[in-house]
Amino acid sequence: MRLRRRKDTTDYLQNEKQCIVLDPTAYKGRWHEFFNNDHPIHVELGMGKGSFVSNMSHQHPHINYIGIDLYDELIRKASERAHEVHGDEVKNLGLVMYNIEELEHIFASSEIDHIYLNFSDPWPKKRHAKRRLTHPDFLQKYRDVLRETGTLQLRTDSETLFEFSLNSFASTNMQLSNISLNLHRDEEPENHVYTEYEKKFVSQGKPIYQCQGTFAKHK
Amino acid sequence: MRLRRRKDTTDYLQNEKQCIVLDPTAYKGRWHEFFNNDHPIHVELGMGKGSFVSNMSHQHPHINYIGIDLYDELIRKASERAHEVHGDEVKNLGLVMYNIEELEHIFASSEIDHIYLNFSDPWPKKRHAKRRLTHPDFLQKYRDVLRETGTLQLRTDSETLFEFSLNSFASTNMQLSNISLNLHRDEEPENHVYTEYEKKFVSQGKPIYQCQGTFAKHK
Repeated sequence: MRLRRRKDTTDYLQNEKQCIVLDPTAYKGRWHEFFNNDHPIHVELGMGKGSFVSNMSHQHPHINYIGIDLYDELIRKASERAHEVHGDEVKNLGLVMYNIEELEHIFASSEIDHIYLNFSDPWPKKRHAKRRLTHPDFLQKYRDVLRETGTLQLRTDSETLFEFSLNSFASTNMQLSNISLNLHRDEEPENHVYTEYEKKFVSQGKPIYQCQGTFAKHK
Repeated sequence: MRLRRRKDTTDYLQNEKQCIVLDPTAYKGRWHEFFNNDHPIHVELGMGKGSFVSNMSHQHPHINYIGIDLYDELIRKASERAHEVHGDEVKNLGLVMYNIEELEHIFASSEIDHIYLNFSDPWPKKRHAKRRLTHPDFLQKYRDVLRETGTLQLRTDSETLFEFSLNSFASTNMQLSNISLNLHRDEEPENHVYTEYEKKFVSQGKPIYQCQGTFAKHK
């Protein structure tokens, strides 16, 4: 994603303490302290500009949302978006700048209830397969941080990423559900919250793929 | 499929005993007697004009193939095709006129090794969902007649049938593999045997979907 970085972004992040978390490892196993409640935690990995987590957290006040991305300017954009949607007070949303590859440093085992992967980078070249967020190595991490009944949801416009993901899920013995090869084929799903990419692709008439899965945790 | 029925087709079927089986229920649990060997049995449900089973049986002489369809003229076409491919002697192919809904009347439990569903009718209307050959009611039948390690393979050009099938497989706890959303995207699979429909759709540039699955038989 090309994004012009504003000069004062480091300052912005330091001063905007309400939903930006600059030391997420400090909350590992203690995210309920950040939110001040025991509501379920839903995490978006690669939130981009944060429209999805902003709208979801506004629509579902009894769920805590955490959006993660790697770049400071995206965290800032997401924070600005959160305040546009929520107003001054953002209660149930945390914005985290961190590398998803080290997810185990910010969440304890079974700490979260749901993971969203929305329009993740498809990394189309074979030699980059390990970077795809649905590679079995990543699934192993998700399995660990998700609760027993926790769900992973993938939404993408990429045929090749979706195909790769289905095979990856199957090889990991995930229990799949709600598989769609064209999410917007029929009537609009009720209360559907779009990501920025999704809105763009749907307006272009591209099909959106979706799949949910749970991990078999019993051994 | 529109097909002109030739007047002498009943006679043809009666006289062509080599690969046509008019009394398939007589072979339930005894198909090795029909083939005179204990080779694995692969079945195509809805073989149409039989190109696929004719070519597969010719390419794999140590596998026994059974093609099933409902209409006498298709059985005749398939028999003619089999002789075109094999010559006079067709050793490892049986052509069966029967209703797939009553599969349990022609195969014993665990009698077969592999089931092919090639370009099955998608039955797009919701009220016809039970007729789709990947409906859970059908999967239950396949599970019974397949061996423990037996595989089901679906190949289709229909996005909606493929989506329905993936959800149906998942809900039946099948172990999936070799999922493709565009089978001919890259290089041609080696020794790939096309069905008539597949050849047509590929030449039109339509994607072919494929999935394999095994059933969990342990309780």
